[in-house]
Amino acid sequence: MYGLIGKITTHSGQRDVLIEILIRGLADMPGCLSYVVAKDPSQPDLIWVTEAWQSKEAHAASLGLPSVRDAITKGRPLIAGMERVAETTPMGGHGLTRR
Amino acid sequence: MYGLIGKITTHSGQRDVLIEILIRGLADMPGCLSYVVAKDPSQPDLIWVTEAWQSKEAHAASLGLPSVRDAITKGRPLIAGMERVAETTPMGGHGLTRR
Repeated sequence: MYGLIGKITTHSGQRDVLIEILIRGLADMPGCLSYVVAKDPSQPDLIWVTEAWQSKEAHAASLGLPSVRDAITKGRPLIAGMERVAETTPMGGHGLTRR
Repeated sequence: MYGLIGKITTHSGQRDVLIEILIRGLADMPGCLSYVVAKDPSQPDLIWVTEAWQSKEAHAASLGLPSVRDAITKGRPLIAGMERVAETTPMGGHGLTRR
């Protein structure tokens, strides 16, 4: 498995709009086992995204999906900064769900 | 919803043992929607744990479950350090699964 933990800072006031785009954009991603979009309650423009994939290749392939490309096109103007906090190797747990 | 992103550093060589304890310890936690235990491939003793719960109260209650208390008792001697990276408010995504 392949995992990512990232944070995204939006331009002021754009967080809810971007969260909606991210949640809709990931409607059907082959090989995606978990993709959770969260607000940081202590920082008004910060989003956390935690992901688990069957493989690094499945994640890379998702970036070419029309739905994901559309989300990136719509979301990019709202983003002030992104940081990849960690690349991980998920080992198990709860909520790892194949589509 | 309530979320946590945390990292745990084990004593040298104890990571795989602790991962096994964590994965087994969370076999049945009411209100847990996602709980992913991951290795950090770039740091040999580092574990990432990303969690989503129905509520902060559900997370707090889980700490009193016999299975979780047992995991804590077994796991604690293996842990060199823990850091809560973020407390979050999950908004949606894939893999948020009720038991």
